[in-house]
Formats: sequence, C-alpha cells, structure tokens
Amino acid sequence: MTPSDSTTPRLLPSFVEGAWWEPRTGTIARDASTGEGVALVGSDGLDIAAAVEYGRTVGQASLGELTFHERALRLKALAVHLSDVKEELYALSDRTGATRRDSMVDIDGGIGVLYTYSSKGRRELPNAKLLVDGDPENLARDGSFGGQHVYTRLPGVAFQVNAFNFPVWGMLEKFAPAFLAGVPSIVKPATPTAYLTEAAVRAMVDSGLLPAGSLQLICGSVRGFLDTLDVRDSVAFTGSASTAHTLAEHPRVLRGEVTLGRETDSLNAAILGADAVTGTPEFDAYVASVVTEMTSKAGQKCTSIRRLIVPAARVDAVVEAVGARLAQRVTLGDPRAAGVTMGPLASIEQRDEVRRSVEKLLAGGGRLAFGSLDEPAVVRLNGTVAPAPEGAFFAPVLVRFDDADAPAVHDIEAFGPVASVIGYTDAADAVRLANRGGGSLVATVASFDPETVVTLVSGIAPFHGRVLVLDRDDAKTSTGHGSPVPHLVHGGPGRAGGGEELGGIRAVKHFMRRTAIQGTPAVLSALTGRWRAGAPVQAGEEHPFRKSLARLRIGDAVVSAEREITLEDIGHFAEFTGDTFYAHTDEEAAAANPFFPGRVAHGYLLLAWAAGLFVDPAPGPVLANYGLENLRFITPVSPGDSVRVTLTAKQITPRENEEYGEVRWDAVLVNQHDEVVASYDVLTLVAKEG
Amino acid sequence: MTPSDSTTPRLLPSFVEGAWWEPRTGTIARDASTGEGVALVGSDGLDIAAAVEYGRTVGQASLGELTFHERALRLKALAVHLSDVKEELYALSDRTGATRRDSMVDIDGGIGVLYTYSSKGRRELPNAKLLVDGDPENLARDGSFGGQHVYTRLPGVAFQVNAFNFPVWGMLEKFAPAFLAGVPSIVKPATPTAYLTEAAVRAMVDSGLLPAGSLQLICGSVRGFLDTLDVRDSVAFTGSASTAHTLAEHPRVLRGEVTLGRETDSLNAAILGADAVTGTPEFDAYVASVVTEMTSKAGQKCTSIRRLIVPAARVDAVVEAVGARLAQRVTLGDPRAAGVTMGPLASIEQRDEVRRSVEKLLAGGGRLAFGSLDEPAVVRLNGTVAPAPEGAFFAPVLVRFDDADAPAVHDIEAFGPVASVIGYTDAADAVRLANRGGGSLVATVASFDPETVVTLVSGIAPFHGRVLVLDRDDAKTSTGHGSPVPHLVHGGPGRAGGGEELGGIRAVKHFMRRTAIQGTPAVLSALTGRWRAGAPVQAGEEHPFRKSLARLRIGDAVVSAEREITLEDIGHFAEFTGDTFYAHTDEEAAAANPFFPGRVAHGYLLLAWAAGLFVDPAPGPVLANYGLENLRFITPVSPGDSVRVTLTAKQITPRENEEYGEVRWDAVLVNQHDEVVASYDVLTLVAKEG
Repeated sequence: MTPSDSTTPRLLPSFVEGAWWEPRTGTIARDASTGEGVALVGSDGLDIAAAVEYGRTVGQASLGELTFHERALRLKALAVHLSDVKEELYALSDRTGATRRDSMVDIDGGIGVLYTYSSKGRRELPNAKLLVDGDPENLARDGSFGGQHVYTRLPGVAFQVNAFNFPVWGMLEKFAPAFLAGVPSIVKPATPTAYLTEAAVRAMVDSGLLPAGSLQLICGSVRGFLDTLDVRDSVAFTGSASTAHTLAEHPRVLRGEVTLGRETDSLNAAILGADAVTGTPEFDAYVASVVTEMTSKAGQKCTSIRRLIVPAARVDAVVEAVGARLAQRVTLGDPRAAGVTMGPLASIEQRDEVRRSVEKLLAGGGRLAFGSLDEPAVVRLNGTVAPAPEGAFFAPVLVRFDDADAPAVHDIEAFGPVASVIGYTDAADAVRLANRGGGSLVATVASFDPETVVTLVSGIAPFHGRVLVLDRDDAKTSTGHGSPVPHLVHGGPGRAGGGEELGGIRAVKHFMRRTAIQGTPAVLSALTGRWRAGAPVQAGEEHPFRKSLARLRIGDAVVSAEREITLEDIGHFAEFTGDTFYAHTDEEAAAANPFFPGRVAHGYLLLAWAAGLFVDPAPGPVLANYGLENLRFITPVSPGDSVRVTLTAKQITPRENEEYGEVRWDAVLVNQHDEVVASYDVLTLVAKEG
Repeated sequence: MTPSDSTTPRLLPSFVEGAWWEPRTGTIARDASTGEGVALVGSDGLDIAAAVEYGRTVGQASLGELTFHERALRLKALAVHLSDVKEELYALSDRTGATRRDSMVDIDGGIGVLYTYSSKGRRELPNAKLLVDGDPENLARDGSFGGQHVYTRLPGVAFQVNAFNFPVWGMLEKFAPAFLAGVPSIVKPATPTAYLTEAAVRAMVDSGLLPAGSLQLICGSVRGFLDTLDVRDSVAFTGSASTAHTLAEHPRVLRGEVTLGRETDSLNAAILGADAVTGTPEFDAYVASVVTEMTSKAGQKCTSIRRLIVPAARVDAVVEAVGARLAQRVTLGDPRAAGVTMGPLASIEQRDEVRRSVEKLLAGGGRLAFGSLDEPAVVRLNGTVAPAPEGAFFAPVLVRFDDADAPAVHDIEAFGPVASVIGYTDAADAVRLANRGGGSLVATVASFDPETVVTLVSGIAPFHGRVLVLDRDDAKTSTGHGSPVPHLVHGGPGRAGGGEELGGIRAVKHFMRRTAIQGTPAVLSALTGRWRAGAPVQAGEEHPFRKSLARLRIGDAVVSAEREITLEDIGHFAEFTGDTFYAHTDEEAAAANPFFPGRVAHGYLLLAWAAGLFVDPAPGPVLANYGLENLRFITPVSPGDSVRVTLTAKQITPRENEEYGEVRWDAVLVNQHDEVVASYDVLTLVAKEG
C-alpha cells in the first residue's frame, strides 16, 4: 500500500463568481516527501467564461469604486491578515517539499510584495483612478491644443497562470499590481502545489477585504481559457517555455487581441571575475551564492544559477569549493525532520524530469563533478536516514563541461539542484558565453575590479532582466541572485520569455493602457484632474490658502501684487545669507558672465519674495510647504525690475488615513514685462476640513 | 499600348552593407495616375542575413561611438539635408498619387519627426550612451546594497517593415528613435512606393551624415528575414493585420526570441457628442474633420476615420453635411493637374481592393449615402476630365448603416476614401459602438459639454491609442484626427496591433532593453555615471566649483561649515521677504500646527543659507544656478539649531554645441544632530574648460 492510498485527499475547491466551487474529481497532488495524497485538483465542469464575465462586470465595478490609495490600503490589510495565518500556510508548504527557509521565501516573500505595493502605491501614485504619464505636450503655437498621455486600467480581467514552485509568492506578485491597477485577477495555480495557493486565497477571501470579483481562483486545468478572453483582458504566464509557446500560438494572441506576458525559465549565469581569485571575499561570496541557489527550493527557481562561468584556470578551484560547501551544508530529507536543509522536488514527475535533463547534460559533453544520479539516502520524517523513492528527492549535482561552447550547457535546463561549470578565456569570452543563454532572467557578476565590472555588466545587460554585482561590500546585505524584489523588474528577454513583472509601479502599468489624449488645456485638465497652463483659472476674492481640501479645486489661484527689487535688496540678501556669488555682488564680473546683463538678484531671493507675495500668513488649512519641484530660473532679474507671482492649484491628493492631503501648486514668477522669471511647483500639506 | 510599355522603368537599388545593390529584375511599381512604370522593385539574390550581420557589427560599432546628444545632432543635420532635396522628393511623391498637401504630410512630416527627436534627444536624454530609468532603490538597511534600472540599446538591428502609404514619414518615424537609441535600422519599404523611400534614403546616404551601417534599405521582398533575426533584434511592422499575423506565427516570434511591434489598420471612430447639434461649431468641425480624413491621402491612412458614430437623430444631418462638403471640396484627378484636391489610390490593386471592401460593406447592410462605385471622371494631367481606368482613381463613398451593430461596419476596413455612418442612442451606446472596433489607433470625440467629454473619453480610452477631443477652442489649432505627432504615442490595442511607436523618448526605449542592476552604491554609480548616496565622495582641498567639466568628476564634493540660526534671523527674513506665515512669526500658532514644534525657520531661508554655505563666490567655471529639483523639507529647524550642507556632483552633462554643460549636484542639509533638514538637487551650468 502506498501512502497515497491510506487517506482520502480532499477535493480542492476553486473560488469563482463569488463562491467556492467544488470539483467532483481531479488529479492528485501529493506530499513531495511522503507521496501521500494531499488534494484532488480538478476543474471539470467549471465555467471559465462565466468567471471571466464575472470579473469583467462585478470585479471591474467593485475595484472601479476605489482609488489607487484605497486599493493600496487594502493590500496592506491583506498582508496583515495573511501574516496572521502564516503558520497554517507553513504547515501546508512543508508538504510541497519546502524547508522553513524556502517557505519564508514563498510566503513571507509574497506578503512582502503586498506591503511594497501598498507603500509604493501610496507614495508614487495619485489618490485617483487614472494615472498621468509624462509631461504635458503643447502642440499649438498659441497653447490652445496639447497632448497628455494617461494610463487607464484594462477593462477586462488579468488571467494569471502560475508555476508550481512559488504557490503563494507567484500568486501575490501578479495579483498585487493588478489589484492596484484596478483589474480583477483570475489565478490559476499549478496542480502539484495548488492546495497552498488555495489556502492563501481562502484566507484572503475570509478576511472580507477583497472587493467582489477582484480575485478568483481556478484550481485545475484551464484548457480553452484563451477562447474566453479578448482585447479587454491580459494574460500573465509563468512556467515552461513550451507552454508559453503554445499560448502564443492561440489565434487571439497571434492577432494581438490578447496581451500575453510571459516569464519562462532561463539558464542564468554567474560569472566569476578574473580578479576574484581563491582567497578573495568575492570568490567566497561566489561559492556561497552558487550553493544557496542550487539548494534553495531544491533549485526549483526560474532564477537559480544554472551556468557557472569562471576563468578557465579557476574551474578546478570552483568545483572543489562548491563541492565542499555542498557536502558540508546540505542535508537532504523531509523538511519536517530535524536538521534537514534541502527538501525534495515538488513531485515525482519533476524528479524524473530533472534526472532526464541531467542525463542530457551528460550526454551533451558534461561530466559529473559533484553528486550522483543514484537514489539518495535522505532523512525521513521519523529521523532515519534511508532512500525514500516514494518522495521526490534528488541530491545536488554539479556538471562540468570541458567545452564551454557545448550546446547542452546553454540549452538544457535541469530544474532542480543542478548547475554546470564552464571556463572562459577573457572578459569578452565570458560575456559571449553568458549571452549564449539567449536571454536570461538574471546573472551575477562577482568582481571587485571596477573595469571588470563595467566590461561584464555592460556586455551582458541587454541580454538580462537583472544583473547582480557581488563583491565584498554587499556580499552580506545582498538580497541574492535568486530573489526577485518587488522594487525591481523580474523578467528577461528572449528565452526568459520577454516579459516584465514587478519593478514597482512599472508592473501596475502592465495592467493599464496608455492613451494619448489631445485637446484644449481645459479639456486635458478636466480629464486628468491635473491643472495645466492655459486651463481655466479661478482667481476670486478668497485666497486659495483659505480653502480646505473640501473646497479647494484645481485652477483656484492667487495673483500677487508686484514688488520692485533694488540693488540694496540684492546686497542685503548677499550679506544676510552669505551667498556672495559674483553675479550678485560684482557688476563687472557679472556682466562678463554669458548669462547675466550685470548684477542680478539671487534665485533664492526671488523664491523667498515670491513666497512673501503669495503667502496668506494667518493660520488656516495650509499647514506646511514641504517641498518644491521642477524649479527653473529663466529670465535674470536686474535691480529696478519688478516681480509678481501667480500660484494655481495644480493637483490635489488627499491622504486616506490623515486629516490632510498634498496640494501641488503651479508657481510662475514674471517681471514687469510679463517675461517668465522662474517657474516651479510648490508642494504643500493642506487640511481636509476647516 | 498602355503607358507602362512606353518607357523602361529603372531597376530600384537597395542599400546594404555600405553599398548600393542593383537587382536584375523586379515587380513593377507604377505611377498611380497614369499607370506608367516608375521602377522595378526586386531583391532576388540579396543576402538579407549579411545585411543583418553588417548592422549588428559595423552599424552597432559606429553608432556605439556616439552619445545620445551626438546622435540627436545627426538627426537634425539629416533633417536639414532632406529639407534641401524636398522638391525632388515631392516630384516622386506626385507619382504615388499624392497631392502636394499629401506629400507635405509624408515628407515634411517625416522631416519634422527628425527635428522633434533631435530636440527631445538633447533635452530629455543624458549626453551619454546609457539611460537611467527611475529612481534609485535602496535594498539594504545600511544602504550598502541597492538597485537601479537602466536602458541599454538592443545589441542587434531594428528591422522595419513599412506600409505603402507613407514612404518617407513611415521610414523616418521608425528610423529616428532607433538611431537615437543607437540601433542600426534595416528598412523595407512597400513595393508600390519604394522608389520614394529609396530617394529619401539616397539623400541621407549622400549627406555623409550616416554612421556606417546605421541605415540599410531593402527594396523588394524580404521573405525569410525572420530566420536571420534573434534575441538581439527587433521588428517593427506597419501594414495589414493579416501580414502581422503571419509574422507573429514565426517560431522565433512565438518563442519570444524576436520582439515584434506591430501597427495595423483599425476602424477608427469619430463620435459626435449629443450636444453638438447642427449649427454648433463642434458639428461643423466634426464634418470638416470627417471630410479631411476621407480625402487626405485618398483615405489611405491607418488613422483615417472609418466609422462616424452620431446621435441617431443626427444621422441624416451628418450624411447631408458630409456629402455636401465632399461634393464642394473634392476634385479627383492626377495630382499634377491644376485644381485637383484628391489623387488616386496608390495602385490599381489597392483600388480594386477598396472596391471589394465597399461591396462587402453594402452586402453587410450598408447603403450608399454618398458617391458611387462607377468609374469616376477625373482631371487628367492634360486638364481634360474623363474616366481614367489606367489610374487607381476611386471617388469618395459614404456608407450608411441602419443597424449600428451590423458586423460589417465594425470589421471591414475599406482602405480608401470610404467611411460608414451609424447612429447611437446614448453616450454608453456610443462608447460601446466605438469599442466594437476591437482596439483602434485613434478616435475623435466632438463635444463642448464637459460631462459628455468625460463619459465618452473615459469609456473609450482603454480601447484606443489616441483620443482627440474636438471643440470650438481647438478646431483651428488641432493637429487633426489622422495625424500622429512625434510627441505622442502612435499605436493602439487589439486590432490596431497592440504596438506603440513615437511618443517622444518612449519610442527610443522600444529599441533598448531595461535591466535592473543590483550592487553597492559605488558600483551603481560607476555603471550609471550618476552618483548616488553612499557612493564614494572626494571632498578634497579644492572646492568643486573651481573645477571645469574637464576636471570635475561625479562624487566631487564640498562639506560646508556650520551656521546657527537665531530667532532674530527668522524674524528678519520674514520682514525682508514679506513671508510672515504664522509658523515663522507666531510661537503659539506655530506650536499648534501638527508639523512644527514652535516657530521655525523658513524653508527658503534654509535654501538661501545653504547656498551661502556652499557657494564659492569668485568667478570660475560655475556660471549659473539655473534650477533646482526634488526639494523636500524634512526636519524643521528651530531657533538655536545649526545647519551645514554637503554638495556632491551627481551628474555631468556636457552640451555638444556649447562651451558649457549641466552639472546636477546632490545637496543635503543637516542640523547639529546630523538629522536631514532638507535634500534637493541643484542644477548649474559649468564651463567645459578654464
């Protein structure tokens, strides 16, 4: 009797159209270490088209009611909630073969993505539903016609097909930016670990924080799902290049109707710089990183190091050091057993697939430099050490190629604790070999020599989505070769799929559409919620500093009185501030400067006077001037000139959890000839009420 | 004898591997009005793979020597040179069927793209070879590890497949951003008008301004070209959806190895707002725009208006007004004949294709509301008016559909002077009908009612690459529905191809790859040429303001002395500047403010004092402080506090045609407790020498 027969695995439900849907049968997902059945994963009879339509209607409507900041706050609340049920998720994660450290990468890493998007969403996006992209473009001599790019959310669903290796992080790293964009997600986890994704989704649903239709889950096959999608929707796929290829062949993708983002595995390289000889901190950091990447998640990461590209003379040393560290650090076994540092692969099928890949590497010119393909003895749950063929165990393997150009090393990915070593002749050769991967997610360059770093990084950058430079100064603090961080783009060209995920707000834009809007300043201001030059101005009796956010509108303005600047003012300011730069203090020297007619007023004097001209001094809703942006001094101001300033409310950003918000004011300072002296944005905090 | 037999058309050469290559034979390209043979267009025997390899080697090397600014200046020089040979290009353009106005759109429009990219390249890109994307990301608590996105150019060629309708603009709008990015172009024009592209390329080659290998031209078939491309290269395609579909099916595209950008035709809509009743300026502007778009380039524009979506009650009025204006304004004939306002289509094949499409529209429920399919009488070159079946003449046709949902009106594009009219019930219906195009390049909304504009624009934006709002205030100055401008994105989702072109520097990035670089601040600064916090600083004896660009390096810094601020200073500043905001003048009120402990120094006082602390007053290489960016006031400064400032050279941008350049300085103001008081970038102009 195999362990899988000893229990009846539960039927894993999907969450569609606002309710849990239970299949009648399914494919069995097994505990990676024991082979015990964990869940039956199936979707026969599930109406995918209805789920898509539910997302497009109910999901779009509920998310459409929230601003970016409101969605960002939901992400934070979801992160808090998931943290509360972490132990439950860890327990399920054990069954996928993950060690506690692996589980933290997946579960805590996924929660971290929610936190980062929550924080970036509130700091880097407006508290609005539409995102302005880039600067206004003026397209008419008289300013009556212009253009502005904006992002609006995709009007459909974000269909997300995930890989088995990160059941939680893989789901959340796509969900978070889609949610922030306002696009409902439909998540399809990979069958072997779907039960962990289901648990995470269940926790999110139970939290009550998800707007209706904003997240649906389909466990099991989604065959034919592309037939249900169209120009409104997007697909983000993580998985094998061959599946991605199949999706790309679908007529709706071929015709460009459905956008397909893909992130596939790649043969990521780690280059050891010629300067990083044995005994250097870079050599040690390199070896440590290789061992970490080979064994973390048992090497089942699309970002793992697959190709060690080292100076030919250092191949022996690297093989020896990596082997020694693997031997010393790796204890293979059931992750629930004490002392185990590396778990099994996710499934028996994966184990067999990895073994076949290693055999191909060996047939392609590789030699086993560390490890073997024999059934390994492993630490079992009861603490005994013995072979456990019912589990998906596979011990680390290092393959060495004498021919650095052997096609196998650059083409065959063994998706497990497997890496290959090749030697290079010089930096150009190292670049060439790294790029033979045909496009990768990530590469490491280990070097402390600035010239080596520049040569290697600039040579490989266009073939890589991410490049990590490892040296003695960041070896301890580096987030690691294999760890995508939400701040930075995850993805790579060519073989890596050509897609981009994460990268902060960049990923939010993947779930939005850019449109160039053309029209009058009035129309563009009304459509974007951002006042622009030429749009209507309300400069009434009431100073706009007397208006709280409840009453302030973009276009509310104050036009100041005029004030004349004398030579004495300039001299006095120079003395008071200590800024005795010759352009303000020495008539002859100033006149010799190509930009000044003679002594001119300090730019900071003009700024300060402008504030003096526009400020309404008594306490009121304007609480503080917290900054200033895009200041340009345009026309110099000479003694005898006068200045006046116009201040216009440009953008209003209430903060969700504060009694105030940010107001950006357009400031234009002109002289007595109406020539622009300076222009800038003044940033203030303004109370919501009062 | 047909006119084509009366002369021997010349063999049209290609320009590959640095030399002109002449075919032995080819397909005949004919004068659109007379049918006379103009050129034989063929590429049999041309080695496409060799041209690609030449671009990847010679082209990459020569463009790689230039910075963005140097490339931008070449673009300007090319624009000047092309302007000098405009008359020659106009004469050839006549033969494509273009009126002089059409030719200006193509030729002057194309030259305008070069000017815009030259100007934007110098204003918006660094004078460097690598483009920094976004802000630095700190990834370690102690600041020792961080990330930075950069763009590097694609390491291969930009293969550009163009449509027949804009032989010059179509080439230049792809070439300019690729050139600016530093990527060699291989241009493949459409056969019917390839002779005009060839003339423009010849002029560019003859100018001597093109770096070797930066532009190659292949006239004739490029069958199999995708087999020669890989992860290094990109393809930008403009043309029919069916050809785009074929390209997308190529294994190298399916596998994601070769990036394919596509811009295909679309069924662009023009919506007449419910407020724009007969007699309003919007109604008139709408009708004028429709007639312009139907007849400009004889309607052979991917951006032409194909679907008139008007209030059901206004269909009659629109049909009548458009018909009347067409009748009044359009004189069909040989564009070289006097009085002709609309020329023939580009070829007999196109004429037949358009006729077939109109027949499909009629079979699909349309009725002819203006015009006919009879052979039109046209103005011939000799001034007589008679049918000219040897020319590709096709008179304007307006088709009316009683059923606004007839599939034909939303699916069938007649690529000529043809548009369809349908009626809508309310704004939501208008949005729905516009979006039935399945993704379009552009739409016009004609309305002066703010609510109508917001409803229509926000409803259609996610389905459109560009939306033009037409009203009484921009009707005269608008650049027009059908005219892409280089500042704004050209492209659209779904049926329009899903690609993006133009849009200023956005298009340059399409020819570059984004990579996230991770490392120490020192490494990131060295790789990007931009100093960042934590990177090495050189604060030596010499004040960095004494260094010209010849000697100044990023990281050169000055650390100022400390200066104490008194209550008297604050009071004095308030009085001198007039900025008597209560936070500076009223202890009790200031203390009641949530952000201040009591009276605090003015932000502008701190800025001015900081300048006083870091400025080196005597004449020297620093010529002017022309601006300031990203200022944030962080910790308030109370009487008795002291401040000091560190100023560090952050980015150095020499100007190509001036004796000076821009230096961006990182300024950090701290108090006596080393708390950051304010941080900002100071922008200066600094002499190159002396």
